Amino acid sequence: MSNNDLKVLRHSAAHLAAQAIMELFPGTLLTIGPATEEGFFYDILPEKNLKEEDLMAIEQRMKELVEKNYAIEHKEISKDEARKMYEGNPFKLELINELPGDTVGLSVQGEFKDLCRGGHVESTGGIKHFKLLGISGSYWRADKSNQALQRIHGTAFPTAKELRAYEKRQEELQKYDHRKLGRQLDYFSFQEAAAGFPFFHPKGKIILKNLVSYMRKLQNEYGYKEVQTPTILDAELWKRSGHYDYYKENMYFSEIDDEQFAIKPMNCPGAYLIYGSRPRSYRELPLKLAEFGHVHRYELSGVLHGLLRVRAFTIDDTHIFCMLNQLEAEILKILEIAFRVYKKCDFENISLALSTRPEKSMGTDKEWEKATAALENALKACGRPYTLQEGEGAFYGPKIEIVSKDAMGREWQTGTVQVDFFQAENFDLNYISSEGKKERPVIIHQAIYGSLERFFAILLEHYKGHLPFWLAPEQVRVLTITDDQKEYAQKIYERLRQEGLRVVLDTGSDKISSKIKSAQLAKVPWMLVLGNKEVDAGTVSLRLSSGKQEFGISVDELVKRAQELNQL
Amino acid sequence: MSNNDLKVLRHSAAHLAAQAIMELFPGTLLTIGPATEEGFFYDILPEKNLKEEDLMAIEQRMKELVEKNYAIEHKEISKDEARKMYEGNPFKLELINELPGDTVGLSVQGEFKDLCRGGHVESTGGIKHFKLLGISGSYWRADKSNQALQRIHGTAFPTAKELRAYEKRQEELQKYDHRKLGRQLDYFSFQEAAAGFPFFHPKGKIILKNLVSYMRKLQNEYGYKEVQTPTILDAELWKRSGHYDYYKENMYFSEIDDEQFAIKPMNCPGAYLIYGSRPRSYRELPLKLAEFGHVHRYELSGVLHGLLRVRAFTIDDTHIFCMLNQLEAEILKILEIAFRVYKKCDFENISLALSTRPEKSMGTDKEWEKATAALENALKACGRPYTLQEGEGAFYGPKIEIVSKDAMGREWQTGTVQVDFFQAENFDLNYISSEGKKERPVIIHQAIYGSLERFFAILLEHYKGHLPFWLAPEQVRVLTITDDQKEYAQKIYERLRQEGLRVVLDTGSDKISSKIKSAQLAKVPWMLVLGNKEVDAGTVSLRLSSGKQEFGISVDELVKRAQELNQL
Repeated sequence: MSNNDLKVLRHSAAHLAAQAIMELFPGTLLTIGPATEEGFFYDILPEKNLKEEDLMAIEQRMKELVEKNYAIEHKEISKDEARKMYEGNPFKLELINELPGDTVGLSVQGEFKDLCRGGHVESTGGIKHFKLLGISGSYWRADKSNQALQRIHGTAFPTAKELRAYEKRQEELQKYDHRKLGRQLDYFSFQEAAAGFPFFHPKGKIILKNLVSYMRKLQNEYGYKEVQTPTILDAELWKRSGHYDYYKENMYFSEIDDEQFAIKPMNCPGAYLIYGSRPRSYRELPLKLAEFGHVHRYELSGVLHGLLRVRAFTIDDTHIFCMLNQLEAEILKILEIAFRVYKKCDFENISLALSTRPEKSMGTDKEWEKATAALENALKACGRPYTLQEGEGAFYGPKIEIVSKDAMGREWQTGTVQVDFFQAENFDLNYISSEGKKERPVIIHQAIYGSLERFFAILLEHYKGHLPFWLAPEQVRVLTITDDQKEYAQKIYERLRQEGLRVVLDTGSDKISSKIKSAQLAKVPWMLVLGNKEVDAGTVSLRLSSGKQEFGISVDELVKRAQELNQL
Repeated sequence: MSNNDLKVLRHSAAHLAAQAIMELFPGTLLTIGPATEEGFFYDILPEKNLKEEDLMAIEQRMKELVEKNYAIEHKEISKDEARKMYEGNPFKLELINELPGDTVGLSVQGEFKDLCRGGHVESTGGIKHFKLLGISGSYWRADKSNQALQRIHGTAFPTAKELRAYEKRQEELQKYDHRKLGRQLDYFSFQEAAAGFPFFHPKGKIILKNLVSYMRKLQNEYGYKEVQTPTILDAELWKRSGHYDYYKENMYFSEIDDEQFAIKPMNCPGAYLIYGSRPRSYRELPLKLAEFGHVHRYELSGVLHGLLRVRAFTIDDTHIFCMLNQLEAEILKILEIAFRVYKKCDFENISLALSTRPEKSMGTDKEWEKATAALENALKACGRPYTLQEGEGAFYGPKIEIVSKDAMGREWQTGTVQVDFFQAENFDLNYISSEGKKERPVIIHQAIYGSLERFFAILLEHYKGHLPFWLAPEQVRVLTITDDQKEYAQKIYERLRQEGLRVVLDTGSDKISSKIKSAQLAKVPWMLVLGNKEVDAGTVSLRLSSGKQEFGISVDELVKRAQELNQL
């Protein structure tokens, strides 16, 4: 089935759902019901809010309507007629008034009519493999200052097999949902007092720290310099940067001494102020300022989604100030760093896209050519295929987007490399060239993880909870079979701790099988199972979370292997 | 001279300054002019704002008034008479109305009269050794919603020698003022767009990171667990914690979805929410949650002072949840950590004070006795003297304050250990005891650095800019005498970098003397001076910032010494 046919099917399913709803809950006002990537939804305003339990009745009624196999007909009617039909429905009236022309489309199936452009299956009998998935909150036209609505969502497929496959995949996704894993493993939580602001528990904080340490190691190697800029900055600064005009809706504000301040949604202006805090010479370039900056961005409460979509997060944000002729080499190095990071995190499938100059843009032709050539040459030099997104760059410069595919086949845009001609001008940043002249630096915005919180969530799902050794909050658990190994286990525990490993000792009275089970549940990569044989030989037996077991490893050998895996 | 006599002298000097001001700027309104620890001030409202340059004229006029040697007389006059005298001065009128009784005191010297309780030298000739120090902004009754005033401050001493000593000390303090050092060494800056919010430049950030790393090392050793809690939390939570009622003036607020949120001024509630995020067993106690929490607290712009007094800072904040019978052992461990930290930072003079139950307090007698005994026993066990501050504990528990004296003899309260009976009740925190009953944990609030920003400033002044090896942002600079040593210098540089040291290579064409001078200015602890002799022998010569020099050290020996100094 073509993608278009699938859309037609799903849009028809949305009508079907609407028909069932109108029959069961007659006073309901319908708004819009489009097909989506994953299925369809219908936004409605019922007289009394619907509950999850109501979905079953609606789905049942949909099935009955399928049985009846109503023909689905498309008609054009006059706008006046349509207005009359939707007299009590301000949403449909708004739509009717906005549509061009004098007529509007109407789809008719049995008694049920719905405003519609067209594109349907022939009869309700053609929609057999569908499922309602849930109810959530939404707003008319996704604007929270408008009327709050309820969204019924579902999906539909041409065959039962495809629907089953979809359901299975959903189950898989649900099983490894980072929110579920995060709770089970005590990594983080969300609290009523702070919707969208995550609380990292000790184990979760270790994972974040490991991500930071690894990035710091790379930054140190590549000559980045870390800075720290304030969380709150004068609103005037955000006017200067353009955020106040273009990004205000996503920002939080406060007041100090009767002046407006903003809680930073981005780290860029802080980096500019540090760059501009003293005169710079060309000898200092490229100057690479890095910040693990904690930013706050408003999101509608309805779209918050665990760590994947939060209201505050940390970016591995770097700003490279360089000369135009340094661009290519710098971008190549950034790509190098990016690929090291993704390899380290076992993302095997990375795709690159170059977005070029849009119609409206600032800067000269020559600058754009040079910058785009620099990005393109770097992409070629790194020897990986990339796609071209013509005209999709920002108005202030071209960019590279890096997308990684996870173990479940989902794609995540994490890395970005953005060239910027605009802000150096805007913040009057310059350097003294070798000829003693004032010149503007080019700025590269770079983020590899992107949001650390989001990257954390992606990794947790990508690894299905089994984080690799270097990231795991608990790396090794030492388990005794009986009390006879207590002393030996303590010695091994001390040794591993001294080596800087994150190790836990379990010498409790439980049976070894239940100790292993509990370590397995905690997703500890290494279990050291110690019995009398190990004590006598002065060795350990190593059990991996995969179940694989190895016996008679010397402690030195074990430490050596652990250190190798632990290396950043 | 007794402390009281000194106060009398300084208060008289304030009157003298006021007399001079009234003669030179007749329309000025006087408010109050008390003696202070360091000297005196007078808050005034001139018709036109005074400038720094005006101070010289005022000081000159004060000297003339001293020459005239007016007798200073004290009179009591009726309030009505006083009101008449100060008809146009709302400040003095307010004071007159507030004073008890029917009369008020007046001091008279020549033509000049001032409202005053009394306590003066006999005549203006007795005020010889004084100095005006500056003008700053203030508010009537230090309330920024009141009239803005100007504050003239100065000091006075009984002898010329004491005044000279004071001036010398001030010069010293100014020379090693962390704000000056911070700018010279490019450690941090303040920007117009964010008064009171520091920007840490690359070298300053390294210092902060070293402080964090060292504390993390100790926390890891003592079994603390690091967490991370949100910067913004619902105002409701701050009502629950009591901050909204008692600390609101110092908090910044924002709005999300029409609800009030606060930017956290403290990290405690975050820790409570994590503790309360799942059931806890007595087996988990003591549970020690640590957070390097970035907090925001409002300060008047007039009192901001470099990193010593800022509007946002990071606390090494820890919350220990324990049972009452674990208190003593935990407090002893905290003191142990504190003394390790202060020793590491070369504070030799530490004093301890125990603050006990105030009149108004919560909790039972038995709890207070136990908690106070726990603190006292820990103090005794650590074998250091301490003072008792009877009744000066918080209403929710007793505490220990730790004060360190720096190299310039100034005292800084940095560490606090506070026992808390209140918040576990307030946030309904509990654990299941060994008998299976719900019990309330006791909470210990612990901070050793206190504010990292403030501690940074204290260290910078304490060390007069010469930070010790482990803290120094640049630890080693490799200097060549001629180009002949370039290759060798590069090799040494690489080796030291690989060893994780913070090293800079200077193979420029400057003379070795100016290279040394520049390293000296940057306060680099180790300079490696390389000539042909060193190349031939494969050694280095080490020059310390003190000027001490040592020749013929092998590179391995050098690395060994550096690693020792670098150890946290």
